[in-house]
Amino acid sequence: MIKVGIIGATGYAGAELVRLLLNHPQAEIKWYGSRSYIDQNFADIYRNFFELVDASCMDDNMEALADQVDVIFTATPQGYLAGVLTEEILQKTKIVDLSADYRIKDVSVYEKWYGITHKSPQFIQEAVYGLCEINRNLINEQTRLIANPGCYTTCSILTAYPLVKEGLIDPSTLIVDAKSGTSGAGRGAKTPNLFCEVNENIKAYGVTSHRHTPEIEEQLGYAAGHEMTINFTPHLVPMNRGILVTEYASLMKKVTYEEVKAVYDRYYKDEKFVRVLPQGVCPETKWVEGSNYVDVNFVIDERTNRIVMMGALDNLVKGAAGQAVQNMNLLFGLEEATGLNLVPCFP
Amino acid sequence: MIKVGIIGATGYAGAELVRLLLNHPQAEIKWYGSRSYIDQNFADIYRNFFELVDASCMDDNMEALADQVDVIFTATPQGYLAGVLTEEILQKTKIVDLSADYRIKDVSVYEKWYGITHKSPQFIQEAVYGLCEINRNLINEQTRLIANPGCYTTCSILTAYPLVKEGLIDPSTLIVDAKSGTSGAGRGAKTPNLFCEVNENIKAYGVTSHRHTPEIEEQLGYAAGHEMTINFTPHLVPMNRGILVTEYASLMKKVTYEEVKAVYDRYYKDEKFVRVLPQGVCPETKWVEGSNYVDVNFVIDERTNRIVMMGALDNLVKGAAGQAVQNMNLLFGLEEATGLNLVPCFP
Amino acid sequence: MIKVGIIGATGYAGAELVRLLLNHPQAEIKWYGSRSYIDQNFADIYRNFFELVDASCMDDNMEALADQVDVIFTATPQGYLAGVLTEEILQKTKIVDLSADYRIKDVSVYEKWYGITHKSPQFIQEAVYGLCEINRNLINEQTRLIANPGCYTTCSILTAYPLVKEGLIDPSTLIVDAKSGTSGAGRGAKTPNLFCEVNENIKAYGVTSHRHTPEIEEQLGYAAGHEMTINFTPHLVPMNRGILVTEYASLMKKVTYEEVKAVYDRYYKDEKFVRVLPQGVCPETKWVEGSNYVDVNFVIDERTNRIVMMGALDNLVKGAAGQAVQNMNLLFGLEEATGLNLVPCFP
Amino acid sequence: MIKVGIIGATGYAGAELVRLLLNHPQAEIKWYGSRSYIDQNFADIYRNFFELVDASCMDDNMEALADQVDVIFTATPQGYLAGVLTEEILQKTKIVDLSADYRIKDVSVYEKWYGITHKSPQFIQEAVYGLCEINRNLINEQTRLIANPGCYTTCSILTAYPLVKEGLIDPSTLIVDAKSGTSGAGRGAKTPNLFCEVNENIKAYGVTSHRHTPEIEEQLGYAAGHEMTINFTPHLVPMNRGILVTEYASLMKKVTYEEVKAVYDRYYKDEKFVRVLPQGVCPETKWVEGSNYVDVNFVIDERTNRIVMMGALDNLVKGAAGQAVQNMNLLFGLEEATGLNLVPCFP
Repeated sequence: MIKVGIIGATGYAGAELVRLLLNHPQAEIKWYGSRSYIDQNFADIYRNFFELVDASCMDDNMEALADQVDVIFTATPQGYLAGVLTEEILQKTKIVDLSADYRIKDVSVYEKWYGITHKSPQFIQEAVYGLCEINRNLINEQTRLIANPGCYTTCSILTAYPLVKEGLIDPSTLIVDAKSGTSGAGRGAKTPNLFCEVNENIKAYGVTSHRHTPEIEEQLGYAAGHEMTINFTPHLVPMNRGILVTEYASLMKKVTYEEVKAVYDRYYKDEKFVRVLPQGVCPETKWVEGSNYVDVNFVIDERTNRIVMMGALDNLVKGAAGQAVQNMNLLFGLEEATGLNLVPCFP
Repeated sequence: MIKVGIIGATGYAGAELVRLLLNHPQAEIKWYGSRSYIDQNFADIYRNFFELVDASCMDDNMEALADQVDVIFTATPQGYLAGVLTEEILQKTKIVDLSADYRIKDVSVYEKWYGITHKSPQFIQEAVYGLCEINRNLINEQTRLIANPGCYTTCSILTAYPLVKEGLIDPSTLIVDAKSGTSGAGRGAKTPNLFCEVNENIKAYGVTSHRHTPEIEEQLGYAAGHEMTINFTPHLVPMNRGILVTEYASLMKKVTYEEVKAVYDRYYKDEKFVRVLPQGVCPETKWVEGSNYVDVNFVIDERTNRIVMMGALDNLVKGAAGQAVQNMNLLFGLEEATGLNLVPCFP
Repeated sequence: MIKVGIIGATGYAGAELVRLLLNHPQAEIKWYGSRSYIDQNFADIYRNFFELVDASCMDDNMEALADQVDVIFTATPQGYLAGVLTEEILQKTKIVDLSADYRIKDVSVYEKWYGITHKSPQFIQEAVYGLCEINRNLINEQTRLIANPGCYTTCSILTAYPLVKEGLIDPSTLIVDAKSGTSGAGRGAKTPNLFCEVNENIKAYGVTSHRHTPEIEEQLGYAAGHEMTINFTPHLVPMNRGILVTEYASLMKKVTYEEVKAVYDRYYKDEKFVRVLPQGVCPETKWVEGSNYVDVNFVIDERTNRIVMMGALDNLVKGAAGQAVQNMNLLFGLEEATGLNLVPCFP
Repeated sequence: MIKVGIIGATGYAGAELVRLLLNHPQAEIKWYGSRSYIDQNFADIYRNFFELVDASCMDDNMEALADQVDVIFTATPQGYLAGVLTEEILQKTKIVDLSADYRIKDVSVYEKWYGITHKSPQFIQEAVYGLCEINRNLINEQTRLIANPGCYTTCSILTAYPLVKEGLIDPSTLIVDAKSGTSGAGRGAKTPNLFCEVNENIKAYGVTSHRHTPEIEEQLGYAAGHEMTINFTPHLVPMNRGILVTEYASLMKKVTYEEVKAVYDRYYKDEKFVRVLPQGVCPETKWVEGSNYVDVNFVIDERTNRIVMMGALDNLVKGAAGQAVQNMNLLFGLEEATGLNLVPCFP
């Protein structure tokens, strides 16, 4: 059994990790780290785990933890892991970081968008960007540090990746209009996240300035073979879970539905967790809820010579905890989908 | 592998059966019956199953089906199974009926509340009321016909059962005020179930006349040892899943919290799917969503000499498909929780 | 024009007062009191008022305010008004208090349920309980202090009042099961009120201990002619606005629908804001949203000799700000419905 | 008093017209037309109007109606009005058409996008496109036929209009990503609009093919001075009311926030119903709910040389019934905002 520690176990992403790992046949949670709830029963904080988890929350002592577990998931605020990570820790345990600390290779880009100084840039190059569908061959039992992708990022990248990689769309025209459920905002007690403020409402936020922008640009830039600049606009939707992205780009040449479909299929037909939907079916977040799937599809607009790409995932699963478990599986040589046979829950 | 047929697979309860059975280690769905969608791809009707189910909907030919499968789940309108069931069918296959046709032992009560004539009353006595926590010893490999309890009923009965059975409350004072998510209303296209009619709204319905009333009365009457008459009032809540019941009854004598808690524990501490919450914690439907749990608790009101009991479950799982699978497990001698290790999904 | 000051203008009830008073033909808001947002533009706190309100939030100096306005609405935490009210203030201005400070005549009951010492019990007897439909004749231009009823209370009382007053039901059997939208919980940033915690969820809270209980008991007790003890259970529903109460009581004698309907009509047919619905139609909160109406109805259950009464209102209007304006109108000799011709908004 | 007839009074837009007209000081509804509910009490179909409307639904006899009323609102399916309109009717009464029949000047465009033959193209040129903020000078007591703009259209056009008109953006780059509440889908009983299908879900629909596309293109094309082709993608959001548009376009030259703001202010500072929000504040649908406002704002993205424009309105008010009343006011020489002093309702 893989011994697991979670730092930040009482955030929504941390709790989702617990949900998934409880049914994972080869992992066992040894440490429920939560600085806010030290010594409190974890199942008192998340009552869905009543009688399923019998453990108290622990302080987040990375060094002590590294001695005890095989892998640490850090579901922590930006800057936390960068501030405590050491070579000693990495020699003792693997780390899957759900924060953004090691996602962006250019530290100056990270520091500009996040507004903080990176405390341990020496580990950035080693970290593998854990989007398994793209970087699978970089993740194995020798890998020590995974930068688990962001929720918006995973959805945005996987939706456009084949067409960017194949040069079918003009990267400079890419616009990502994203819509997210409210669990993405976390469990912090803030007025804008109150039920009455979110319910029956939709708004954009972080327009031109959301921190997932450079992450998308960097990863899609690798696919394009050159730097990219995009517009990314997130919106808050009155639902708990789910991200939908609607992406617009100009086509490089006239293409048919069948040609584009063939490209998507080439990249994804063997991918268990990416489903290219039948022609004419738009992805809906509800159809992937609770599961590790990303559903994608596209429509070609001959009138404007653009393509509209769409993708949907569950932000807490494929957008966070599910992908983290997928990475863990690769890190320990397990079958990649182990513990992730989650059938989407509808309605 | 147990070969399974589902009649009514494209209703919400039917689709939930599919969700659960896909991950059941010892069952295999052979027949997706749906008169409304014959020959259509099941995964086109419920896109959560895209790439997970590759089968077309079939007509609901019970006789043909009985030859092919070990168990049939009927998630059908009231009266359907009673109209087609025969001794021949029961000799070939087991049946778990999610409709009300065989739940009520007194056929005149059934006919009065449902307003239809029962077409095969000869099977009523044989049918076992499949509330496993209470009737487990009646359900085994010899059992042929299970009347799977209603959603409101399961929640209402399990919440009050220990206190009725032990004579702690006066059965004639029992009032059940129930609140349900909208999936309980089914997938039929009716104006009152439109998003805009249900959302931001709450109402009672079927006041004094809801069909789950006699089912609760009969089962709790067995516990009380005599006939009972209760008030049962369902309400429609703007959420997809979940039932909460709030039950009121007068206490037969002065009791302490500890005494009542001891009674609940005696009945439920070994029940995997019933969780008696800690003192002061009220059940919430979200904490059991997607799982087979029923959470219960109570508060004693010394001022009025009443007790307020509360219970919560997921109407599509413990209130329908999960309980049906629990029954199937017993029917085939499997461990009762097989395939039901569903961790509640929050948020 | 009546000059109005609001203390607590940035709570949900305070902001609803602003919404109503902006369209009131004979009132003018002079003071937007909000200790939390002093000197901030009120329309920055509630952007629905952008270009409609051009005023900054002020500190809550009751004495200064009393010199400037004709009436003060206090939409403040329990104990605030009791702590600052003086005879001098009451000689200068009228007060409509939306808190509970002067609702309960027996100060020991208040202190027990609210857990605080009442700082100015000398004004309790003078205060008029401002449930206009019942106490209209006590509210006039001489009245100085109105205790505006609670949201649950208004709904609970008006739903049962005629039957209690006429002795048709046994007051000792009254059970009130209430369901409320989330705006009743206020705008405070607390984890349990976050979108993801409330959405897709329902729960009871304050079971046997909610503070509106003694308020209902006192007022219905006046109608009954003797003290009453009831069970009152509030529930939190995933919607912004609305309260629905479902009330159960034993009938004192056999009565017909027509007899009970005649009683309701006698009390309410001339009441503009109470609508007794047609037979068989259950109140729904959505049908009164945004308006000052209370919709009521009932069903007699011959089987149990009980009656089920139901009532619905908008907790921020008839349950708070609308009723406060109704009281203001009476206090200044205006037509009672002035400014309250609000057509319910559906959907 | 203006005598008003409504054809299609029992759709959501028709019922919203009733809500607004009931409080209009100079209009009186004489005819509640609804083919589906002939002779039924209108208040039985929409119970918010209980005791407020005492009238039965009538058949939709346009000729009879034209003799009795001063203006007819047609809130009817596409093609209905075109099929029945005659010169005789227009000589007797004015018409405000909430359908699309007379919105598009090029009948071949109409027929292509709507897939129906236009039955009375002879009235298309006479019809005035009733976007009052733009076409106010064309709407007066001589005007006979108003084509009331679509909900998405109103929001999409008003958000971009000043910048298109002033040539600040490149019209060929305009992309409109729109999000709508579910009341836009109407009250028809269809499975995709059921609560459980819409709730906790978001999806795009009508991608590259939604019928509001040519309407936006035509109107913004007038502003641009040449034909335009855009991408328009609507999305269904789990809320009752509200439309949010997020629009992307390339800037024609480098501009500052102040320059763009000055353009918006020039067009809208005297417009009562268009609110240009303060810098940095994104429009939210909740802040305009129930009112006739459109809130707009923008963010310049120097990195991509694009501008992101945002607009929010209530689809049933400014997107339908409110705008229709605004048009009616102009048609009868009333102050344009008469009866539209609706304060947005929050929360």
